[in-house]
Amino acid sequence: MTTTSPQASATATGAGDAPRADGRAHDQLRPITITRGWSSQAEGSALIEFGSTRVLCTASFTEGVPRWLKGEGKGWVTAEYAMLPRATNTRSSRESVKGKIGGRTHEISRLIGRSLRAIIDTKALGENTIVLDCDVLQADGGTRTAAITGAFVALAESIRWAREQGLVHKNAKVLTDTVSAVSVGIIDGTPMLDLPYVEDVRAETDMNVVVTGSGDFVEVQGTAEGAPFKRDELDALLDLALAGTAELSRIQREALGVETGESL
Amino acid sequence: MTTTSPQASATATGAGDAPRADGRAHDQLRPITITRGWSSQAEGSALIEFGSTRVLCTASFTEGVPRWLKGEGKGWVTAEYAMLPRATNTRSSRESVKGKIGGRTHEISRLIGRSLRAIIDTKALGENTIVLDCDVLQADGGTRTAAITGAFVALAESIRWAREQGLVHKNAKVLTDTVSAVSVGIIDGTPMLDLPYVEDVRAETDMNVVVTGSGDFVEVQGTAEGAPFKRDELDALLDLALAGTAELSRIQREALGVETGESL
Amino acid sequence: MTTTSPQASATATGAGDAPRADGRAHDQLRPITITRGWSSQAEGSALIEFGSTRVLCTASFTEGVPRWLKGEGKGWVTAEYAMLPRATNTRSSRESVKGKIGGRTHEISRLIGRSLRAIIDTKALGENTIVLDCDVLQADGGTRTAAITGAFVALAESIRWAREQGLVHKNAKVLTDTVSAVSVGIIDGTPMLDLPYVEDVRAETDMNVVVTGSGDFVEVQGTAEGAPFKRDELDALLDLALAGTAELSRIQREALGVETGESL
Amino acid sequence: MTTTSPQASATATGAGDAPRADGRAHDQLRPITITRGWSSQAEGSALIEFGSTRVLCTASFTEGVPRWLKGEGKGWVTAEYAMLPRATNTRSSRESVKGKIGGRTHEISRLIGRSLRAIIDTKALGENTIVLDCDVLQADGGTRTAAITGAFVALAESIRWAREQGLVHKNAKVLTDTVSAVSVGIIDGTPMLDLPYVEDVRAETDMNVVVTGSGDFVEVQGTAEGAPFKRDELDALLDLALAGTAELSRIQREALGVETGESL
Amino acid sequence: MTTTSPQASATATGAGDAPRADGRAHDQLRPITITRGWSSQAEGSALIEFGSTRVLCTASFTEGVPRWLKGEGKGWVTAEYAMLPRATNTRSSRESVKGKIGGRTHEISRLIGRSLRAIIDTKALGENTIVLDCDVLQADGGTRTAAITGAFVALAESIRWAREQGLVHKNAKVLTDTVSAVSVGIIDGTPMLDLPYVEDVRAETDMNVVVTGSGDFVEVQGTAEGAPFKRDELDALLDLALAGTAELSRIQREALGVETGESL
Amino acid sequence: MTTTSPQASATATGAGDAPRADGRAHDQLRPITITRGWSSQAEGSALIEFGSTRVLCTASFTEGVPRWLKGEGKGWVTAEYAMLPRATNTRSSRESVKGKIGGRTHEISRLIGRSLRAIIDTKALGENTIVLDCDVLQADGGTRTAAITGAFVALAESIRWAREQGLVHKNAKVLTDTVSAVSVGIIDGTPMLDLPYVEDVRAETDMNVVVTGSGDFVEVQGTAEGAPFKRDELDALLDLALAGTAELSRIQREALGVETGESL
Repeated sequence: MTTTSPQASATATGAGDAPRADGRAHDQLRPITITRGWSSQAEGSALIEFGSTRVLCTASFTEGVPRWLKGEGKGWVTAEYAMLPRATNTRSSRESVKGKIGGRTHEISRLIGRSLRAIIDTKALGENTIVLDCDVLQADGGTRTAAITGAFVALAESIRWAREQGLVHKNAKVLTDTVSAVSVGIIDGTPMLDLPYVEDVRAETDMNVVVTGSGDFVEVQGTAEGAPFKRDELDALLDLALAGTAELSRIQREALGVETGESL
Repeated sequence: MTTTSPQASATATGAGDAPRADGRAHDQLRPITITRGWSSQAEGSALIEFGSTRVLCTASFTEGVPRWLKGEGKGWVTAEYAMLPRATNTRSSRESVKGKIGGRTHEISRLIGRSLRAIIDTKALGENTIVLDCDVLQADGGTRTAAITGAFVALAESIRWAREQGLVHKNAKVLTDTVSAVSVGIIDGTPMLDLPYVEDVRAETDMNVVVTGSGDFVEVQGTAEGAPFKRDELDALLDLALAGTAELSRIQREALGVETGESL
Repeated sequence: MTTTSPQASATATGAGDAPRADGRAHDQLRPITITRGWSSQAEGSALIEFGSTRVLCTASFTEGVPRWLKGEGKGWVTAEYAMLPRATNTRSSRESVKGKIGGRTHEISRLIGRSLRAIIDTKALGENTIVLDCDVLQADGGTRTAAITGAFVALAESIRWAREQGLVHKNAKVLTDTVSAVSVGIIDGTPMLDLPYVEDVRAETDMNVVVTGSGDFVEVQGTAEGAPFKRDELDALLDLALAGTAELSRIQREALGVETGESL
Repeated sequence: MTTTSPQASATATGAGDAPRADGRAHDQLRPITITRGWSSQAEGSALIEFGSTRVLCTASFTEGVPRWLKGEGKGWVTAEYAMLPRATNTRSSRESVKGKIGGRTHEISRLIGRSLRAIIDTKALGENTIVLDCDVLQADGGTRTAAITGAFVALAESIRWAREQGLVHKNAKVLTDTVSAVSVGIIDGTPMLDLPYVEDVRAETDMNVVVTGSGDFVEVQGTAEGAPFKRDELDALLDLALAGTAELSRIQREALGVETGESL
Repeated sequence: MTTTSPQASATATGAGDAPRADGRAHDQLRPITITRGWSSQAEGSALIEFGSTRVLCTASFTEGVPRWLKGEGKGWVTAEYAMLPRATNTRSSRESVKGKIGGRTHEISRLIGRSLRAIIDTKALGENTIVLDCDVLQADGGTRTAAITGAFVALAESIRWAREQGLVHKNAKVLTDTVSAVSVGIIDGTPMLDLPYVEDVRAETDMNVVVTGSGDFVEVQGTAEGAPFKRDELDALLDLALAGTAELSRIQREALGVETGESL
Repeated sequence: MTTTSPQASATATGAGDAPRADGRAHDQLRPITITRGWSSQAEGSALIEFGSTRVLCTASFTEGVPRWLKGEGKGWVTAEYAMLPRATNTRSSRESVKGKIGGRTHEISRLIGRSLRAIIDTKALGENTIVLDCDVLQADGGTRTAAITGAFVALAESIRWAREQGLVHKNAKVLTDTVSAVSVGIIDGTPMLDLPYVEDVRAETDMNVVVTGSGDFVEVQGTAEGAPFKRDELDALLDLALAGTAELSRIQREALGVETGESL
C-alpha cells in the first residue's frame, strides 16, 4: 500500500516565498511516499521516501525480552540504522568490512530507538521484543528523520500482526500516539523545512525534531554548524518543525488506514 | 527501466512435469524482473528480482586503481555482497554489529567478483576501479545467482556512463560477453532449475553455475547436501543450468537494450 | 591553579525554592572547581569538578593536520571522551577490553568536538591540530557538560602555549568566544539546573545545552525520558541553561585569569 | 605410522606424456605421505604431504554438542583451516594479528567441514563433537585438498579412539565411506592432476573435486581463472579427479590399516 | 587521607653519591604520596604518586566469582592496567579506539594481578571477586611498580569495607602480607633505585621487583636493554630493590593506619 | 640436519637425585633435537624439540626496515609466537577466530624478540628486517624457552643466507653471541631444570632465564606461583639455568656446525 503526499505547504504561510532549488516553499515538505508492507518477510515494514531519500524500515517482532528485562512484564523496542555503501553520491566503506560501527551510525540508531520508545506502552506490549531496522537505500538528506517516520509505520504494522496472532492482547493500547520527525535548518538566514543534501551542507544551523501526533516534543537536537544561533532563530525552527511533523503524522495515519482520532 | 520475463520454460521440455509448489515446471525460471537505474546515486544500478528474492546492485566507478595495481595499465573490478538483517524470515544480527564478516558473506563476495572479472577486459577498462555492491533486500533462495546476474547489468551501465564521461575509450570493448548465474538442485531425485528457499532446504544436491552469454562456464560449484551425487546427476544439472542462464542472458540484454549479437 | 565557585544561585530567583537533596535551589549550580594545569605533560589541561563529577581534560597540540585537510591553511580540533571503569557506582567493562567503543562514548566525543569547533577560528589556528581528551575519573551526572566546560580551559591554555612557542601567531584571535555546557531537566514538574546522578535518573526530560560566552546556542539536545515535553517546558529549561552557562563562563575566565571582555 | 605412495600414475594412460617440471605425467599424483598419529596430544592426527605441501591435521573429540543441537541425538563435525605465516614463499601477516579471518580461510574451512560431514553418520556418532584443525606448515599448491584428505585420516583415528573409550558404540558405523580431494586444472590446454604452486598460477581453469571412496561427488568447485571453460574440458577434468581420488582413497586405507572393502 | 614519604635514602649508604638529575642518591626513592580513598565510588581506592608518576587505583568488590570458579569456596582477584592517552609526553592513541589492547598493557595487567594474588588467601576471601583498576593519569617511569604498590592499598581498603558489610568474615585473614614493587636499573654502570623516565630510557639493564612486606620475592623481571648483565650486577640490583620495597611497605602501612606487625 | 643431545646432566652433580617422572636428574635437560632447515620456504628454519614440546621456528629475511627506522642504517628483528589450537591436551580456540591476541601470546612474542635483539648488532645487519615466527606444534611445557633457543638457529641460518645473497656484508659480525633459554622451578622444595607440563603446574616458583653463550643474562623472569621465594632459592635457580643454557648453547653450535669459539 503506497501513500503519497500532495505537495502542499505544511503551514499556511507559503505565499511570497523565494522558491528553493527544488521549487518548494520554505515551509514545504518534499513529496513523501510510504509503501507499507514492502517486505513480505518482516512482521511490519515500510519503504519511506522523503524526495530522493529512501529508507527501508522493517519491524521484527519476537516473543521474549533480553535477559536483563525478564520477569518485569514489560516489552523492549530497539532500533538499528545503517546506510548501504552506495546510498550516497560517493561510495563509503561498509562498517561490516571495517569491523566497527561509526559514531554517526550509533548515534542515529539510539535516536530512533528512543523516539519510538516514547510512544510505546511497554507494559501493554508485554514481554515481547520489537527490533526496527532502518536501512538507507538512497540518501539525500534527512535520512534519520525519514527513518523515524517510516519505522513508526513498520512498528504499528507489527503490533497489528501481533494482535492478530494473539501475542498482544486485543485491546492492549500499545501505541500511545504516533511519532514522526523532520529536519529544519537556517540557510542564508531563512529557516527551512525538510532539508535535502544540497541544503543540509549549506545550513548554518541544523536541527532534527521528533514530535508526537499530539504535538509534544520527544527530541530536539539543534547544532550550530557555522555561527551559534539566537533564541529567536531556535523558536522559528521549532515552529516549522511542529507544522512539518503534524503533516507527517497525517500521512502516517493515512498509510496505516487509521483516521485522525481513531485508536492506533 | 524495468524488464520482466515471461514465465516460459527455459528449456522446451516442460510438458508432463509435476508442477512445483509455485506452479513452475522443473526447468522453468521464476519471474525475473530487472529495474535498471533504480538508484540515482550510483554510476550503474539494477534492482533484480528472482521471484521474491530482491537484490539491489550498484556499480561505483572511480578513476584509479589500488596501489598494488598501479602503473600496469589495467583496471580493477571487485564486489561486496551483504544481506539486510531482516531480508530473511527471521532476523539475523548485522555483521557490522558483530564486528566481523561471516564466512558465507566472504565466499559469495569473492564469487561475484570472480564471475564479473571473467567477462571484463581489464586492459580495455584502463586504470579505473569498479566496485559492485550487491545488497539483498529480500531473500528467498538464489541470492548469489541473482546478485551476479544483476551486478552484470549495473556493471554494464557504469561502463556506458564512463564511456560518456570519456573515462573509457569510446571504442574500448571492455565487456567481452554477458555473464549470469542460476542455481540448480536435485529434489526428490528430480533436477530442478532456480530454487526458492523452500526447495533449497530440501535439495540433496545444490549447485550454482555461472555461465557466459556464449554458454561457457565461469564457475561450477556443486555441493552434496545429503548423499554424494553421481556423474549423470551432475550432467543433468549442468544441462538445466545452461538453459537457464541462456534465458537470463537474453533478459539482461533486454534490460540493457542491446540486441543479441550487438556489442555490449 | 584552582578556581572554586561560590555556591550562589545562577539566577536571582532562588528564594522560596524547595531545596534539593544536596540543598541547592532549583537554579543553582553544584560547586564548580577548575584546576588548570593539573597535568604537567600536556600543552593544556584542567581537572574540572561539578560537585562529585571529576573530569580530567588535556589538550594535545601538534603541528600539522590530518591528510584530508592539508594545504587548506586551517587547523583541526577534535575530542575523545571516555570514562574510567570504576568512575561510576558499579564497575563497567573497559571499552578497550571489549574491543569497541559504545554508542554513548562516540556520541559524547562528537558533541565535545563540535562544541569546541564552534568557538575556534581554524584559519587563525593555522595548520595545527589540537586533540582534547576528556577522561571521567569520577561520575555523578553531567559528565559531558563538565567535559565541554573543562576542555575549553585546556584548549585555551594550549593555545597560549602555542603562542609562546611561536606556533600560532602572537595576535591571532584563535578563540572567538568561551563555550560551556550544563544539563537541565524537569523533575516532578520542576525545571532544575545541573543534575547530579540521583536527579538525572528521575528526570522526565533531560537536556544538555552548550552556550557561548555571548549567550548564543551551540547545541541544544533535549530528550523526553518519560512523557513528551511541551513547548513551555522547553522554554523554561532553556532559560535555566542560559543562566547556568553564563555563570560557568565567568568561572572559566577566572580560571584562565582573563577578565570579562578581555581577549582570550 | 607413515604411509608413502609409490609414484605411479593414477590412471593407466600416462605413456607418451610430456613430463611436467617435476617429471610427472599429466595424470600422476605427487608423492603422497601420511604420518598418522604425528601428534601425541590429539585424539586423532595426521601429517599429510602432497609433494612439498605439508598439512598437520588433528581431530579433537569432545563429548557433547553445541547448544543449538542439544537433545537431537546427533553429533557435530566441523573444521578450521589456517596457514602458518611462513608456509609460503613470502611471509603473510597472521590473521590473529590482523584481528580477522580472511575470506579464503573461511571458505576453505567451510569446504573441509562439509566434505567430512558428507561421510559421517551423525546419528551413529551420537551427541559428540569432533573439530578438525588443518594447519598448513608448508604450502606448495593443493593445501585444501591435502587438508581434506589428511583430515579424514585424523577423523577416522579419533573415532577409533572414541570407540575404545566407549564414547561411541562398538558397532556404530560412524563413517559411511572414505573421502579425499584433489585439484585438477588445464595448463596450456592440457588437463593436469594435482597441481603444485608453479602450475596452479599458470592454470586457465582450476578445479577442486571432493570424492568418496565409492567414486561419488561431494563437492565440485571449478573456476575459470582465464578464459571460461567448455563442457568437454569440464568432463576431462572430472575424469582425472576421479582417478586421482581413487588412488588417494587407497592410500588413506593403507594409512589406517584398513583393507579395501573392510569396514572403517 | 594522604601519606607522603620523607625523602630519606632507602638504605643507609647514600653518602658520597653523585646526585642524580633530581638530586636523589642512587638508593633513594622519589617522594611517594598515597591518597587513600581518593574515589568516593569504589569500595577501595588510592591515588599513588612516585614523583610525577600518578596512578589512580580502585578496587571493585563484588559478591560471587566467575563461572569457572563457582562452588570451590574461593575468591578471585584480578587487575587491569591502562594509561590515559596524554599521560605521557606525546599523545598515544586510545586502545579502545584502536580496538585492541597492546602487548605491554596485557603484560602489566597480568603482572599486577599475579602480584596481588601472591598475598591473598582466596579461601579467606570466600566466593567474592575483587577487580583492581590501575589507570595511569600521568606517567614518568615506574608506572607498573606504582600501580602494584597503590593497588595493594586499594585492595586492603576494599577488604575492610567488605568486613564491615559482613561480606567477609570479621576474623578472616584475607591478606597474608603487604606487597609492593619498585624498579631498579644500571645507568652508566651504577645500580639505581626507582627510575624516572629520563633514567629509564638510559638504563642498560632494567628490573622490576615485587616483594612482600616480609622481604620475599613475588616477581623478578630483569631485562638487558643494552649489553647482557653479569651475575654480580643482578645481585646489586636485588639488594637495592629489597631496600626500596621495605620502605614502600612502611609507607603502605602508614597510609592504611596499620602499625608494623599489626594484622592487616 | 638434525642434532640430538645426549641425555647427560647439565651439571656434574646429578648423583643421589630422586629421579623425576621421566627419569631425569633435577639438573638434566630433556632430550633436545634441532632439525635445521625443516622448512624449504623460509630463509632460515628449525624444528626444535624439548622432549615432547615441538616448535617450528622460521626466519623471514626481507630487505628494508619499518618506516620509523628508515635511514638510520640499522636493521630490525622481531618475533611472533603462537600455538596451534590442538598443541595442548585440550583444544583452545584460535586467536584468529576470537579476533584478538591473548596477553600470554603477546608477552611471549615480546620476550622472544627482546632476547634475539640482545645478540644482534643491528648496524652490522644493515637496513634489513628479520621476522622470527615460532609456532608451537605440540606443547609440553617450556614452549617459550624452546622457541627462543630454536629461533636463534633459524636466525643464524637466515643471516648466512643473506650473506650468500650479498644482502649482508661478507665480514659483518651480525651475531655477537648465541642465545638460549630454559625454564627452572622449585618443586616440593627442590630446584629443577627444564620443566615439562606435569612439573610446571606443580612448581611453587617458575622462572624463565635467557642467557648468552658467554653466560650473561638477557632476561630473568621469576614468578612465585605459590609462596613467595627466598633469595637463596633464587640463587639456586639461577645456577641451574646457567648450566642448562650452557648445554643448549653447545647444541645450537652443533646444529649450526660451528665450533665453540668459532665466529657465528
